[in-house]
Amino acid sequence: MPITFRTELNPTDCAAIRSLVESTGVFNAVELDCAVELADERLKEGPASGYHFVFAELDGRVVGYACYGPIALTIGSYDLYWIAVDKSVQGQGLGRKIMDHVAEIILREGGRHIYIETSTKPHYQATRAFYERCGCPLVATLEDFYAPGDGKAIYYKKV
Amino acid sequence: MPITFRTELNPTDCAAIRSLVESTGVFNAVELDCAVELADERLKEGPASGYHFVFAELDGRVVGYACYGPIALTIGSYDLYWIAVDKSVQGQGLGRKIMDHVAEIILREGGRHIYIETSTKPHYQATRAFYERCGCPLVATLEDFYAPGDGKAIYYKKV
Repeated sequence: MPITFRTELNPTDCAAIRSLVESTGVFNAVELDCAVELADERLKEGPASGYHFVFAELDGRVVGYACYGPIALTIGSYDLYWIAVDKSVQGQGLGRKIMDHVAEIILREGGRHIYIETSTKPHYQATRAFYERCGCPLVATLEDFYAPGDGKAIYYKKV
Repeated sequence: MPITFRTELNPTDCAAIRSLVESTGVFNAVELDCAVELADERLKEGPASGYHFVFAELDGRVVGYACYGPIALTIGSYDLYWIAVDKSVQGQGLGRKIMDHVAEIILREGGRHIYIETSTKPHYQATRAFYERCGCPLVATLEDFYAPGDGKAIYYKKV
């Protein structure tokens, strides 16, 4: 796939984010809104929002993206808030390419750690397997954190 | 100690918080500002701020306090942002009483979990020992999270 990356966020990306996150079939309506909200905040507040983006395009179409940002009051720690690949191009290693691209940018900025939080529910099994394939081990689990039976799993990438 | 508890926040409490947090000798200037900032936000925004307080008074003087709040997008999980006891009355079990009082309030609100984050640095050893004495086990450690050699320790209280 002749993928190109860009980090600028355009107003039209909000719809692209909603569409591709929805295409994965993993996230619910509240999560979809949350993904778009981070892009809205970035458009309104600029870099001060703390949200940074990487978009992967194929023939001018956004087919994957990540949203990340530095963690306040830390030196070199970042949260990866979102990473998603459009259903139509999944299974070709694009998720990993986006992850590596984010890690490269963070490394250039002097960052050293990326944390990724997700749910322990069976529904997110493929998501968790993806992080482990990307070389992000599970470093903590908080049982029942989100709700009864829905714990928080924290994955970690050293950059 | 004839301690009384209250949960309303008064404008004068900001100075009381600064004074008692400073008296502990544990927290630096940035942390002091952060403690006061949460009270400022509560005064400005009310309950919508997400910050809730418990004050312990002895003869009308604030000698201890806690700041906590529900964690967004969770059912029943709370963060304990601050808990501190004035140096002049430490060692008499007041910290534990405040912790129990906070847990009772959270239980009444339907909460089930309290998370407490602190540093793994030797400087915070007494703080971590306090949490363990209060029945809050260490449930996760993220090495070098805040800075090189300064990890995040997460303690947990089931309410």
